[in-house]
Amino acid sequence: MAGSAIKPTPLLKDELDIVIPTIRNLDFLEMWRPFFEQYHLIIVQDGDPSKTIKVPDGFDYELYNRNDINRILGPKASCISFKDSACRCFGYMVSKKKYIYTIDDDCFVAKNPSGEQINALEQHIKNLLSPSTPYFFNTLYDPYREGADFVRGYPFSLREGATTAVSHGLWLNIPDYDAPTQLVKPLERNKRYVDAVLTVPKGTLFPMCGMNLAFNRELIGPAMYFGLMGDGQPIGRYDDMWAGWCMKVICDHMGWGVKTGLPYIWHSKASNPFVNLKKEYSGIYWQEDLIPFFQAAVLPKECVTVQQCYIELAKQVKEKLGKVDPYFIKLADAMVTWIEAWDELNSSEEKSLKQPNGTAK
Amino acid sequence: MAGSAIKPTPLLKDELDIVIPTIRNLDFLEMWRPFFEQYHLIIVQDGDPSKTIKVPDGFDYELYNRNDINRILGPKASCISFKDSACRCFGYMVSKKKYIYTIDDDCFVAKNPSGEQINALEQHIKNLLSPSTPYFFNTLYDPYREGADFVRGYPFSLREGATTAVSHGLWLNIPDYDAPTQLVKPLERNKRYVDAVLTVPKGTLFPMCGMNLAFNRELIGPAMYFGLMGDGQPIGRYDDMWAGWCMKVICDHMGWGVKTGLPYIWHSKASNPFVNLKKEYSGIYWQEDLIPFFQAAVLPKECVTVQQCYIELAKQVKEKLGKVDPYFIKLADAMVTWIEAWDELNSSEEKSLKQPNGTAK
Repeated sequence: MAGSAIKPTPLLKDELDIVIPTIRNLDFLEMWRPFFEQYHLIIVQDGDPSKTIKVPDGFDYELYNRNDINRILGPKASCISFKDSACRCFGYMVSKKKYIYTIDDDCFVAKNPSGEQINALEQHIKNLLSPSTPYFFNTLYDPYREGADFVRGYPFSLREGATTAVSHGLWLNIPDYDAPTQLVKPLERNKRYVDAVLTVPKGTLFPMCGMNLAFNRELIGPAMYFGLMGDGQPIGRYDDMWAGWCMKVICDHMGWGVKTGLPYIWHSKASNPFVNLKKEYSGIYWQEDLIPFFQAAVLPKECVTVQQCYIELAKQVKEKLGKVDPYFIKLADAMVTWIEAWDELNSSEEKSLKQPNGTAK
Repeated sequence: MAGSAIKPTPLLKDELDIVIPTIRNLDFLEMWRPFFEQYHLIIVQDGDPSKTIKVPDGFDYELYNRNDINRILGPKASCISFKDSACRCFGYMVSKKKYIYTIDDDCFVAKNPSGEQINALEQHIKNLLSPSTPYFFNTLYDPYREGADFVRGYPFSLREGATTAVSHGLWLNIPDYDAPTQLVKPLERNKRYVDAVLTVPKGTLFPMCGMNLAFNRELIGPAMYFGLMGDGQPIGRYDDMWAGWCMKVICDHMGWGVKTGLPYIWHSKASNPFVNLKKEYSGIYWQEDLIPFFQAAVLPKECVTVQQCYIELAKQVKEKLGKVDPYFIKLADAMVTWIEAWDELNSSEEKSLKQPNGTAK
């Protein structure tokens, strides 16, 4: 036994996949080794499929490039974005695990105020495994956390909470700003460690960022579609936002909770604000119509599965946002294709279809 | 000039009153001297009026006991609770300032993680003077704070924010738990300093605690009625909760924001959980009906002043909660009396009525 260290089994080791969209070698994984090494990775290559992505030794992964996506989905591959990190949602679709953690390849391990490295994944898992409180705000934040509870005036009938579907983590260093804010405040860094996890209340929308995000795939997976972005599309950098708004409307309808706050990751580099401005331009403009649309969206009580909710939402997108721009008609169709592809891959007979590149330990 | 230190004028010195309900000598003010000394205090004595309350030297204050309340309000004094800190709202009524800060006499100056004393009042004022964001959740919390901003995906049309009506501060050490939680967790202390201020979203209710609370009296004062509690009433410890629910429904209707989070005070002693259990019993039970009532409450668009909103809410309380218990019929009447008294004291000719005990610098 000399020289061999026995590592403790991390939480949900066999029930969670880590999904990483990338266009480059995954050297960033070195820093995450102590936290990710025992989990399975799904890497989705978002650019030129002829390029080889190097993954550090010792990681257990499967990798999909555009050719794989086309082969696996056939004509339905049209719903998966190309040359944009929005393609990460393909990884959600091919995963067979109950939980997903997705992280960008420019995100590193952050430190808490005591200087300790933050195990982001462990915190996400804690967030997902404990209930949410979407119906009433608890002023001491997460009541299920050690050292906290529900405060005076919190109805007892609501203290059981709701099942948590999504855990949205934050970023130290480079904040997730849009291009105009990046341009105006190029030097702003997020240095504030806010030691809290809280539930985004029912009926409230928030900007969901895909950089550091975990969710219960079994519950909400089919709503985590990152839309049509990047190559051939008039918009970028709204993939995670789109997913977040759709997902939130559906979680509110289904009675599930969405948390935001801890854990932090260290976001290392700001993307180019000029490039971003071009990608975001239409999104910034359309957003003014999107938010009222999602705020007003109501799903009929006949929608009892996420798939049904999502198809209904696609119908409403086509009907109401199609007037804003024809892009939303195309997007609504892609939303339907996404659900068809999801159901196809997630039925019992689909397994033989998948033959990714990768290694298995 | 030798020996005299010139103190800088604190924020809103002549536009803010500090309201303190008490039954004892106000020695706790010694610790607050550097922060409160230049402000005017309104002390509301909530017990036996024959008892003398000692106020440390050097504070500028007016003090009202039950006899003063009866003399000033006449028969309308019935709306002000006796032998309960709910009487503090009388102080809001007699104030002539734009802003109110109210604090309990068992609350002391807390320290931030760097060990510095927290100027709670200054933080409340910052919260009140900067806008709120009730329509969309910002994941980096207060976007108006230094070092923060709106994140990607936050609609630009909403970045101007809403006027802030209320700033709800928190407590280190003894958390504000109800009697059952106090009994179950007698040793729990709040040690977590969460460095955030956030807006309670539109449509979301929260448990507002009156221990450490500031508000814009000119905007929302008439909705800050602390109800009928204490002597002769079947309920206690729901005064601030009641005010918070009424206030929130009205702020949502009027388009104003409510913040919670920083600043912390140090809450020194837990009240007796057995006594609290008796006071709270009915509240804990009724609360299960109150929350759905307030969640569903809609104010007609004809209500354009806080007074109109409040009278309308009183009508709905009588109609819907009167069925839960006759207490709510009495409370609804008291809500109307409160507004009548408020308008009487806050019209132009009322000033001669007020002759409190106290000192003026």
